[in-house]
Amino acid sequence: MQNRAAVMHGTHDVRVEERPVPEPGPKEILVEIRAVGVCGSDVHYYEEGRIGSFVIREPLILGHESMGTVVGLGPEATKHEAGDRVTLEPGVPDMTCRECRAGRYNLCPNVRFFATPPVDGAFANYVTVHEDFAFEMPDDLSDNAGALMEPLSVGIWANRKAGTRAGDRVLVTGSGPIGLLAMQVALAEGATEVTVTDVAEERLTLARETGATRTVNVAEEPLAEAGIEADALIECSGNEQALGDGIRCLRPAGTAVVVGMGPGETTNVPLAFVQTREIWLTGTFRYANTYPAAISLAATGKVDLDAIVTSYYGLEDTDSALRASKEDPANVKPMVLPTGGS
Amino acid sequence: MQNRAAVMHGTHDVRVEERPVPEPGPKEILVEIRAVGVCGSDVHYYEEGRIGSFVIREPLILGHESMGTVVGLGPEATKHEAGDRVTLEPGVPDMTCRECRAGRYNLCPNVRFFATPPVDGAFANYVTVHEDFAFEMPDDLSDNAGALMEPLSVGIWANRKAGTRAGDRVLVTGSGPIGLLAMQVALAEGATEVTVTDVAEERLTLARETGATRTVNVAEEPLAEAGIEADALIECSGNEQALGDGIRCLRPAGTAVVVGMGPGETTNVPLAFVQTREIWLTGTFRYANTYPAAISLAATGKVDLDAIVTSYYGLEDTDSALRASKEDPANVKPMVLPTGGS
Amino acid sequence: MQNRAAVMHGTHDVRVEERPVPEPGPKEILVEIRAVGVCGSDVHYYEEGRIGSFVIREPLILGHESMGTVVGLGPEATKHEAGDRVTLEPGVPDMTCRECRAGRYNLCPNVRFFATPPVDGAFANYVTVHEDFAFEMPDDLSDNAGALMEPLSVGIWANRKAGTRAGDRVLVTGSGPIGLLAMQVALAEGATEVTVTDVAEERLTLARETGATRTVNVAEEPLAEAGIEADALIECSGNEQALGDGIRCLRPAGTAVVVGMGPGETTNVPLAFVQTREIWLTGTFRYANTYPAAISLAATGKVDLDAIVTSYYGLEDTDSALRASKEDPANVKPMVLPTGGS
Amino acid sequence: MQNRAAVMHGTHDVRVEERPVPEPGPKEILVEIRAVGVCGSDVHYYEEGRIGSFVIREPLILGHESMGTVVGLGPEATKHEAGDRVTLEPGVPDMTCRECRAGRYNLCPNVRFFATPPVDGAFANYVTVHEDFAFEMPDDLSDNAGALMEPLSVGIWANRKAGTRAGDRVLVTGSGPIGLLAMQVALAEGATEVTVTDVAEERLTLARETGATRTVNVAEEPLAEAGIEADALIECSGNEQALGDGIRCLRPAGTAVVVGMGPGETTNVPLAFVQTREIWLTGTFRYANTYPAAISLAATGKVDLDAIVTSYYGLEDTDSALRASKEDPANVKPMVLPTGGS
Repeated sequence: MQNRAAVMHGTHDVRVEERPVPEPGPKEILVEIRAVGVCGSDVHYYEEGRIGSFVIREPLILGHESMGTVVGLGPEATKHEAGDRVTLEPGVPDMTCRECRAGRYNLCPNVRFFATPPVDGAFANYVTVHEDFAFEMPDDLSDNAGALMEPLSVGIWANRKAGTRAGDRVLVTGSGPIGLLAMQVALAEGATEVTVTDVAEERLTLARETGATRTVNVAEEPLAEAGIEADALIECSGNEQALGDGIRCLRPAGTAVVVGMGPGETTNVPLAFVQTREIWLTGTFRYANTYPAAISLAATGKVDLDAIVTSYYGLEDTDSALRASKEDPANVKPMVLPTGGS
Repeated sequence: MQNRAAVMHGTHDVRVEERPVPEPGPKEILVEIRAVGVCGSDVHYYEEGRIGSFVIREPLILGHESMGTVVGLGPEATKHEAGDRVTLEPGVPDMTCRECRAGRYNLCPNVRFFATPPVDGAFANYVTVHEDFAFEMPDDLSDNAGALMEPLSVGIWANRKAGTRAGDRVLVTGSGPIGLLAMQVALAEGATEVTVTDVAEERLTLARETGATRTVNVAEEPLAEAGIEADALIECSGNEQALGDGIRCLRPAGTAVVVGMGPGETTNVPLAFVQTREIWLTGTFRYANTYPAAISLAATGKVDLDAIVTSYYGLEDTDSALRASKEDPANVKPMVLPTGGS
Repeated sequence: MQNRAAVMHGTHDVRVEERPVPEPGPKEILVEIRAVGVCGSDVHYYEEGRIGSFVIREPLILGHESMGTVVGLGPEATKHEAGDRVTLEPGVPDMTCRECRAGRYNLCPNVRFFATPPVDGAFANYVTVHEDFAFEMPDDLSDNAGALMEPLSVGIWANRKAGTRAGDRVLVTGSGPIGLLAMQVALAEGATEVTVTDVAEERLTLARETGATRTVNVAEEPLAEAGIEADALIECSGNEQALGDGIRCLRPAGTAVVVGMGPGETTNVPLAFVQTREIWLTGTFRYANTYPAAISLAATGKVDLDAIVTSYYGLEDTDSALRASKEDPANVKPMVLPTGGS
Repeated sequence: MQNRAAVMHGTHDVRVEERPVPEPGPKEILVEIRAVGVCGSDVHYYEEGRIGSFVIREPLILGHESMGTVVGLGPEATKHEAGDRVTLEPGVPDMTCRECRAGRYNLCPNVRFFATPPVDGAFANYVTVHEDFAFEMPDDLSDNAGALMEPLSVGIWANRKAGTRAGDRVLVTGSGPIGLLAMQVALAEGATEVTVTDVAEERLTLARETGATRTVNVAEEPLAEAGIEADALIECSGNEQALGDGIRCLRPAGTAVVVGMGPGETTNVPLAFVQTREIWLTGTFRYANTYPAAISLAATGKVDLDAIVTSYYGLEDTDSALRASKEDPANVKPMVLPTGGS
């Protein structure tokens, strides 16, 4: 067994290197990775070397949207068997703190999360993970789908916060992979009007192809003039104006869920509108207890994860994969296949 | 203008008679009725002359699942125009009591509801209704669909109480029209396993044809042995055993929503199970604020209302329509068309 | 019967004038006003002539925290009798729009609210109000208490949004009348740590005297350095820094309720903190369905409304009353007594 | 160190015996027990040898309402120090199952709970417990209070389910220790009418002394005739008629929380009432995440735990303590003091 990994040594500096095959600890499993999606946060680390207060100081393996095959079990690991195809929830919380005990394990201050310094990620042949955070996949789901349970979870979580229900009108600002999947989940939960915005026409085309009932290219038509009233806003662009304009589209007592991270600590928000309409505003930080729903949604065809995959790379080309979406906005979801095809 | 109406004079005694065309009061509209669904409660009044404490003492026009065309406006009525196709929400609350002010207008003690003594219903050529409780329909929705917004609302309301979400497993006991529509709404809200039970195979066939992922004929396979775990139960049969067995299928902290009315005031419930699992149990009484969602769900094809219509009757044959589902369990939803075809 | 009223003709220009005694319309009652609290919004209109988009263009009677005695009934008014002591909910919604039907009548776009242009308020001997929005008071509650059910409602509403529960730690920024009452309600709902901030020491003294478990004078000790962790923030100062610092005191998944209106349309908010902690942020706009709880809280002594009354004025001195709190920050709640003593 | 324990060998057969001092495992602490409350479930095991499906087959130490002093630390235990006074949450869940991950750790199928076969309880000199489930107590709280954090937690949990809020009217059926504490919590959360029922006048006297705004002796005045309307019912008697009558006192959309366990698997419930009023009914099974709130409520004097303690026993007299409340209904809360006075 050989473990090759794409290691980031600095901005724009990713090198494929040999690493020891990790040893699964108690209740952990060893997984041979088959597919890993490239996430915007991977790209951000690659470009900037940091995300907010998370700074890469030591060489780090990126990649946290992953699936693979169980090839080894640590002591006391009983939930899986060698050969199982599993999708990996990349964050393992401590399960003892106040947040974990309250069911908010995504807010655990001691969580260990793939590709977040100093924890290595999944652009590698092998990783270990706690058995509770690996989920068996139905045979007929693709490797792509397995890897993309992670961004799908982000979309599910955003819709849970939004409280999406049958007949809702949802506005999704930003048509990257997260926006596209949040949109699909909104539709799957019965939203009957789902408007998606972006400035890149290719992305809006993909949004329409995967179900958006309306798209608005805000480079051409300001959102404020689009005449939209929505029950919920799911902000996926990280853009201050999108957030402000989106909030102003909400009906009284509507909900704004901020998924996209903006560049700074603070953001200008139309607070008077929030107050006089009693809007609820919140943000999402990862997700909790979403993987079973994600697998079910994909397995029943209620969401189509393969539809947003736009390119494939071998592990040796991880560097290209990390540059792909920036070079071509239509390339919304590059996949890295560390151990072979999809 | 002539107003013929099917008037119930006693059990099994419905006569088509001439009635004065009603005069719309302030903020009311006059509607020419085109389609009316036959509901189980209509049948119950027809068979028994009462439902619980509601007793028919004077001749009464049944029918509360209705749509039609606006043909007149009362004083101050401004929301509709003559010619509009509208679906009618059959209950008009007082909008001043505590329940109404809290948004629970379905629980208004002073509500006036079609076909509930002493308020006449819609098996007639013409009815009046408050303008706020008539909703315009898209052109491409059928008359059937317009009439069936009412039972669809029951299904939406049941799912709101159930809190149905993406990936949920929902158990629907009873495959009559309400069960079938509750099932469709559950699917529309992202439920990925929806099991429907009944004792009539024809109804289960219709359930499968309209989306059920599994059906159980409880005349052959006891629910308790079907190996089901569900996040929510929507009980639509009014049967004590179905309720008890259904509750025992719920996961910890699951929800049981009782829609079907049983025969008595009290019912035996597996309370120890409810307690040790912290199950939430509630019932639905009609619905509130569901019509816009109902119309959207039907208009976008997320639910298919025509699929459950099984037979048509002219107003003169209302009596046959009221007997139809009892004579043939496969005839789940007879429609009365007071002024012509669908 | 003579109806004298304090009429605002322009900024700093309030004149006591004779007005016709208003005639109660259908379902309305005529009330002789006994006590009216001066609210910060009255002061704001007096100083600026406007609040945001609400501009005083015609002479207007201010005052919306009021109680009095029923002295006349309009047609169909049946809920009260002459002689009843009533506290007045100052906003009467249309009860037909979508918001009203959903129970959010405070967000009704057609609400008619005392002292909001062009609707006159209660600095007068007589007003009329819809019978549903007058609430009988127990004999042993003071006139002060009756008038202050209105700001108490704001405090109740803020705590409902905050979800205050037993054992909670609540941070209230701003120690004016609203902050003081929000604090009392938090304590009444079982909060065990309630910290109040302000820059005026006299107000903080009053906060401590009425139950605050801790006060912070943020002119001397920055909130950011006070070492506070709270389950909920109730922001009552309208100050951007108070909001930002207050939010940063919240535990993961805590709630920020913005009650105080800031000067501008937009406000800088620590959105990255909101996102990574999944804070819920909302605002309050008036209140709905709070008066019965408000009366009960005061009647049982769980809140003490008299404790925040700091001065009294006759109707002739309404002008002084409107200037009082600005001239002396310790004068947090001046009362106008249009028809005699408290 | 000597560890004496009161061991139940069979119904009415409790013997004080010498047991080895338990060895704290990883992350566990060793606690010298100072006070243990006698709970109705202890009495039930003592009388019947079982509670439902939980059957005592081996000798068992009862007692799960306990506090004491930390006297030893197991490996990796870091949260406490020797000498700390701690109150013990008696159930330790697995923190890996679905329920635990969702924050519902009280529903963990693998929980190990004091005095539930085969897990020993706290009628002993020494016990071990996971460090996360011991909570430090303020110095000025009595030993009694420390032990009674457990039934107080039951009361807090019941009120969380009931959604008790300021101004609520709460009906508590059953005036044993749980009813009395649920009542105190309701008052602490702002309930303004709290009615308590029972058949034992001594218990109702205690209810009035500790804050009940009304009591009803249902042996003399049937609840159905008491003219009560409540927002929430907290059923603590385990009596079918109390449950039925209590539910019928609820306002539309009110909540019934069933805390008391009845004798059988099923119970007759006024389901038609539940349905037509859309009542929510649920049960409580222990509690989750309540101890910090419980300690705060007691420490701030919002609840008075000493007020319900009615008698004290040494460990040698545990047998008498277990018989006490049955022999004298006024003796609602006997305390066992294994290592000395309170």
